Amino acid sequence: MRKTIIGVMGGESADKREIKYAYDLGALIAKEGWVLLNGGRPAGIMEASSKGCKEHGGMTVGILPGRDSSSTSKYIDIQILTGIGDARNYINVLSSDVVIACKGAAGTVSEIALALKNGKKVILLDFNIDDIFEEYRNSGLLLKAESPEEAIKLAKSFLSASAVSPN
Amino acid sequence: MRKTIIGVMGGESADKREIKYAYDLGALIAKEGWVLLNGGRPAGIMEASSKGCKEHGGMTVGILPGRDSSSTSKYIDIQILTGIGDARNYINVLSSDVVIACKGAAGTVSEIALALKNGKKVILLDFNIDDIFEEYRNSGLLLKAESPEEAIKLAKSFLSASAVSPN
Amino acid sequence: MRKTIIGVMGGESADKREIKYAYDLGALIAKEGWVLLNGGRPAGIMEASSKGCKEHGGMTVGILPGRDSSSTSKYIDIQILTGIGDARNYINVLSSDVVIACKGAAGTVSEIALALKNGKKVILLDFNIDDIFEEYRNSGLLLKAESPEEAIKLAKSFLSASAVSPN
Amino acid sequence: MRKTIIGVMGGESADKREIKYAYDLGALIAKEGWVLLNGGRPAGIMEASSKGCKEHGGMTVGILPGRDSSSTSKYIDIQILTGIGDARNYINVLSSDVVIACKGAAGTVSEIALALKNGKKVILLDFNIDDIFEEYRNSGLLLKAESPEEAIKLAKSFLSASAVSPN
Repeated sequence: MRKTIIGVMGGESADKREIKYAYDLGALIAKEGWVLLNGGRPAGIMEASSKGCKEHGGMTVGILPGRDSSSTSKYIDIQILTGIGDARNYINVLSSDVVIACKGAAGTVSEIALALKNGKKVILLDFNIDDIFEEYRNSGLLLKAESPEEAIKLAKSFLSASAVSPN
Repeated sequence: MRKTIIGVMGGESADKREIKYAYDLGALIAKEGWVLLNGGRPAGIMEASSKGCKEHGGMTVGILPGRDSSSTSKYIDIQILTGIGDARNYINVLSSDVVIACKGAAGTVSEIALALKNGKKVILLDFNIDDIFEEYRNSGLLLKAESPEEAIKLAKSFLSASAVSPN
Repeated sequence: MRKTIIGVMGGESADKREIKYAYDLGALIAKEGWVLLNGGRPAGIMEASSKGCKEHGGMTVGILPGRDSSSTSKYIDIQILTGIGDARNYINVLSSDVVIACKGAAGTVSEIALALKNGKKVILLDFNIDDIFEEYRNSGLLLKAESPEEAIKLAKSFLSASAVSPN
Repeated sequence: MRKTIIGVMGGESADKREIKYAYDLGALIAKEGWVLLNGGRPAGIMEASSKGCKEHGGMTVGILPGRDSSSTSKYIDIQILTGIGDARNYINVLSSDVVIACKGAAGTVSEIALALKNGKKVILLDFNIDDIFEEYRNSGLLLKAESPEEAIKLAKSFLSASAVSPN
C-alpha cells in the first residue's frame, strides 16, 4: 500500500537551530509512520532530518543528483540515484505528498517554486520567503510554521483534506 | 542503512509464462530482504513483480513517468513521481544494484542499454538479446538466466562481488 | 562556431509593459547577433521575446516541456522537445550564457534560483526579487536592470568578463 | 519558422568507413537546409557528422550530457547543456523529426529504442539491429539504408509523409 511521503527541503549549510528543527522534523515524521524524502546527501538539513527519522524508527528516501553512492548520507534507506543533477529537484517535490521547507539557499527556493507551480502543498518552517509567492499563500497552498510540531500539524491537515477531496 | 535494490525491467504486455516469472522474481526478492524497483505501473511485468513482492512481505519502489498517482500499481509502497517520461528509465537503472530484465519491447531494450553503458550489472531472464551487447557479455557485465531462481542466484553472486571490490 | 545564447525567462501571463519589454529584449538580442533561448511556448514573455527576435532577423531556440509540437510558438526556429516537464528549467539556465529574467511567477523564480545555484549570471529586468538572493547579489552574479537596453548592456559586460577569464 | 531537425546518432568510437558515412550525412543534411542534431561531443559519429554539416554551410545543435562547454565539439553552433547525463538521449530523439542511427554501442541502441517507443521514425545506416525491433520494422517506423544518400532519400520520404498527414 502506498506510503505517505513527506519531503523535507533545506540548505546544505544550516545553523544549530535549523539542524535541531530538521532533526526533530525527521523524528516526528517517523512517529507518524510517514516516509521522509529529501535530497539524500550527508549535509545540513538533509543529514539532520534523515538522522532524526532513522533514530526514531522511520524510513528515509534520498533522491540524489549523482550517479553513484559516494555522496549519500548513511541515514538513507532507499537511495534513488537520478544522475540528472539539480533537475532532480522536480522529482523531489512531485514525489512528496506534502513539502516542508526549512531555511535554505537557491536550491531550496527552486524546490518551493517548483512545488507550488505543480500544485503541491508547501509548509515553510521558520523560512520567511512567502511574500514572493503571495498568490499561493492566498490560495492556501503555502502555509507557515514556527516549529517542527506546528509543521507536522499543518501537514496532517493538508493530508486529511486531500483524503476527502474528490481528487 | 542503505537497502539493496533490485531493478526488474520488462514489458507492459507479457504472456502467462512471463507474468509468472515476474511474480516469482518479486517473491524471491522479498525473501532475500531486498527492495524491488520497477516502473511502477499497473501492467505486465511491473504489476506482476510488484504483486509477487508484496504478497511475500517485501518492499516495492515504483519510478513513475508521470506527475500524479493515476497510473501507479496498488502494489507499490514508495511512489517516486518523476514527471520526466521515459527519461526516467535512466533513473531506474542507476538506482538498481543489479538489473534483472524480463522479456520486453523497446522500453526494456533502452533500459538494458542504459544500464550496461553506465556499468550496471544486468541479468537477462528468458530474453535473448545478448548478441547485440556482445562486448558486455564478454566483460561479464551481462549474464543470462533461464529461471527466476537462477536470476536470483546470479544477482547474489554479482552483489557479493561488489561487496568485496575496493569500489 | 558556438553561438552566444541569451536565455529570457518570464511568466506565461504578462501585462502590456512586460510584453513590450520582452519584445524589445528579443529585438535587441537579434541585433547583437546572439541566439535567444526561452521556454518556447506561445504565451506571455516567451511569445513576445521570440516574436521580437524573429521580427528583427534573429534566431530562437525553444526548450519545450512536452513531447510534441502542439505547444510551440510559431516564432521558434529550433524546437527542443524535452518531454521532461518543468525539469527542463534546469536545461534552460545551463544552456544560457547569460539569463535575463523578466517578471514571472513560480516557474521563473525556479529558473532564477537554479541559474544562480549553478553559477550562471542573472539579470533581473524590472523584477524585484533580489532580496531573497542576497548572497548572489553581493557576489556580483545577480544584477538588476530597469529597461531592455540596460539589460543588454549588462549582458555584454557579463559576456566580455567571461571572455577574458581563464575559465 | 520551425526548422526540420535530423538527429544523427552513433558511437563515440567509429572506424574509417563509419566516420566517412557520418561526415557525408552531415554534408547532405546541410545541403537539404535541415538542422543536424546530435550528442554534441568531439568524438566519433558526433564529431564527424557535425564537421560534415559545418563544412557545407549547415547548422548544428548539440545536446550535451554535462553542465559546461568542456566536452563540446567545435563544430557545434547551438550548445544545449542539459546536465542530465544519458537521460538526455530521450531529448535527442524527441527533438528529431527523423532519427538516422549510424553504427554504435549501447548508447546508440538506447536512442533507437527510445525513438521507436515514442513513435519517431528511425533509419538505420549500415547498422543491423533491426531484428530486435521487428514490430517497428513491420509497422514501417524503422527502415534501413546502405548509404548516406539512401538515408537522406528515406528521410525525405518520411518528412513528406508527415507533412500531409492530419497529425
